[in-house]
Amino acid sequence: MEIINGGITAPLGFEAADCAAGIKYVGRTDMAMVFSKEPCVCAGTFTSNVVKAACVMWDMQIVESGRPVHGVIVNSGIANACTGQEGFDACIATARAAEEELGVPFDTMAVASTGVIGMQLPVDKLTEGVKKMASSLNRSEEAGTAASRAIMTTDTVNKEIAVTFEIGGRKVTLGGMSKGSGMIHPDMCTMLAFLTTDVSIDKKLMQRALSETVKDTFNMISVDGDTSTNDTLLLMANGLSGNDRIEAEGRDYDVFKEALFYVCRVLARKMAKDGEGASRLFAARVVNASNKDDARKLARSVISSSLSKAAIFGCDANFGRFLCAMGYSGVDFKQEDVELFFESRNGRMQVFKYGVPLDFDEEEAVKILKADEVTVFIDMHEGSDEAEAWGCDLTYDYVKINADYRS
Amino acid sequence: MEIINGGITAPLGFEAADCAAGIKYVGRTDMAMVFSKEPCVCAGTFTSNVVKAACVMWDMQIVESGRPVHGVIVNSGIANACTGQEGFDACIATARAAEEELGVPFDTMAVASTGVIGMQLPVDKLTEGVKKMASSLNRSEEAGTAASRAIMTTDTVNKEIAVTFEIGGRKVTLGGMSKGSGMIHPDMCTMLAFLTTDVSIDKKLMQRALSETVKDTFNMISVDGDTSTNDTLLLMANGLSGNDRIEAEGRDYDVFKEALFYVCRVLARKMAKDGEGASRLFAARVVNASNKDDARKLARSVISSSLSKAAIFGCDANFGRFLCAMGYSGVDFKQEDVELFFESRNGRMQVFKYGVPLDFDEEEAVKILKADEVTVFIDMHEGSDEAEAWGCDLTYDYVKINADYRS
Repeated sequence: MEIINGGITAPLGFEAADCAAGIKYVGRTDMAMVFSKEPCVCAGTFTSNVVKAACVMWDMQIVESGRPVHGVIVNSGIANACTGQEGFDACIATARAAEEELGVPFDTMAVASTGVIGMQLPVDKLTEGVKKMASSLNRSEEAGTAASRAIMTTDTVNKEIAVTFEIGGRKVTLGGMSKGSGMIHPDMCTMLAFLTTDVSIDKKLMQRALSETVKDTFNMISVDGDTSTNDTLLLMANGLSGNDRIEAEGRDYDVFKEALFYVCRVLARKMAKDGEGASRLFAARVVNASNKDDARKLARSVISSSLSKAAIFGCDANFGRFLCAMGYSGVDFKQEDVELFFESRNGRMQVFKYGVPLDFDEEEAVKILKADEVTVFIDMHEGSDEAEAWGCDLTYDYVKINADYRS
Repeated sequence: MEIINGGITAPLGFEAADCAAGIKYVGRTDMAMVFSKEPCVCAGTFTSNVVKAACVMWDMQIVESGRPVHGVIVNSGIANACTGQEGFDACIATARAAEEELGVPFDTMAVASTGVIGMQLPVDKLTEGVKKMASSLNRSEEAGTAASRAIMTTDTVNKEIAVTFEIGGRKVTLGGMSKGSGMIHPDMCTMLAFLTTDVSIDKKLMQRALSETVKDTFNMISVDGDTSTNDTLLLMANGLSGNDRIEAEGRDYDVFKEALFYVCRVLARKMAKDGEGASRLFAARVVNASNKDDARKLARSVISSSLSKAAIFGCDANFGRFLCAMGYSGVDFKQEDVELFFESRNGRMQVFKYGVPLDFDEEEAVKILKADEVTVFIDMHEGSDEAEAWGCDLTYDYVKINADYRS
């Protein structure tokens, strides 16, 4: 596998466009489109929130129907959640506009939204945006990057990645983009992430690969514990690489899945690190847990704890908060079995050993915790399963951003 | 039922004392003792956190044993959690010191701690503190108030309450004190709260009353989603009011339980309103839910959401965040059934009706949200059960307090 420049336009046959539709933001782009003339098989995972945005319901229908998909249209101004029938009609109008401009059936175009909940979308601006973008679709790396910028809300950096790998002697490419950065506590998948690939693969198999991959990537990040109404992850594969279609598990499937895991992990970590107001990435790595599910729960609980996040912000080696968060994770364990370490590029230090706090050098601890990526390493000494979760610190800026988000 | 001045020393036979033992804080009191020469039946509920503080394990043994209890000794400097055998030995040493000074068996004295996790207690200072307090125990209202001050950590106000009521022609008194104000997300009961009463009642029946009451009082508050290692609620009854012992459910039991509910609710609301960094109380009231458990989950989810809490801080009528939090609460419902209102002493306003956002006057909304106690009122239109939960806003000060708590 090789990491290459670019994002969603890296695979063969995928085009992108963006535009400033003026839906909410002024003076910046707020719509993006990803398009493949060649029909794609499409896999997706969506928010587990009972209150699902209209666009999530639209996309779920499309993915579940098994129909080919040609692309997705995104706006980053208004979430189109809690908007009733009018919100669903806005999805249809968007897709119909694409049908008119691009000549593909409207029910092959997915739509996605992020932004304020409980506001209606201005349909005229949306359809105008689709028209503009349809005429500027192109395959350049720049078009992909511009699309990854247009879907940002409170993100401070755009997030994209692309890799190539070989399947049956054919070069296959997988690209992706995603956005955070608040209301991030995925339970099924996360916020908006779109992956494109030119691999040829069976739809059900691809869905399986995606569903398994999210468990250890997008589902292992948290910014603020709030599971959004709009979480959407779509993976579109148009088959243009010309590999022999992957129809069953085996070597080819494994190669594809490994690349998929890598891409999802990179995007997930980027989202965590760029969490609203965050000043650094805060990871928890749990090893030797008695099973995989416990390992995930423990890691997630630590990086989700407000108190742990605030301690990381303050470079405070207050490790009791991590143990506390493990304790209410729902996992049963004995504190007498646990060892706990802080690590970063600046060093590694043990602070808790078999139920007993260790004396440690506070200055050295601060040095380790000051790095831009900090990991709490937890050895459970119970079994052999492990998991890693990624979050960020809790800062004044998180409060600032969210105390006046709408204004 | 009548509300009277005072707290834990209001019931007959209960004495209190406090002292500055220098365990962590300088220039303030940090230990408290509650004592009844008359032995008490004692009920308690404790944290569900797997990582339980040493003192929680000690108190659980005492409450489960059914032995009479004479009192409780509290320190507010160090939590005595994650401290292994040495931590448990500190509990025993504390209780032994009380035995020596007060002439009651050491295993009739509960102990409680709050503060930093993962540090050992200075046993000499603890026992010295017990000695000092034993000699200054007294029944005055001031002694009770001073004790409620000594157990504070990041609390900004002390929390106490007392009520009287009649059972079988006898005046019965119930008093209580509690402290917050971070790591508050009780799951079984909450932080430290101590209730005293001179009622005569069967121990099992009292435990039942307490366990039922916490579900709709202490378990319905959240400051930061972190369920502490130290949550302890103890209710001690010494029987001195001389009422005919309550041995079964019935009118007397109901009167007692009503008073207990009132006292717990007042203390719980005080803790929510004084959450770390909080500038106001943020309540969620759910009515017409399909069952009690759903109502509780929905209300708790709304007041626990970081984004909802930040919106309240900013007086931002961003009601979509409340619906989002309801959606990931684990309760199944249709947004088409829901109505949502903001209310406070400054007015009431509907913002969402049967799945559709309403146009509303932003200025009027800000006026309502500026009050020091704000309620989100949610009508589910599904059944007839209701619940109320209490939290606080998420402010810069919460981050400030917790980014350098240990220093």
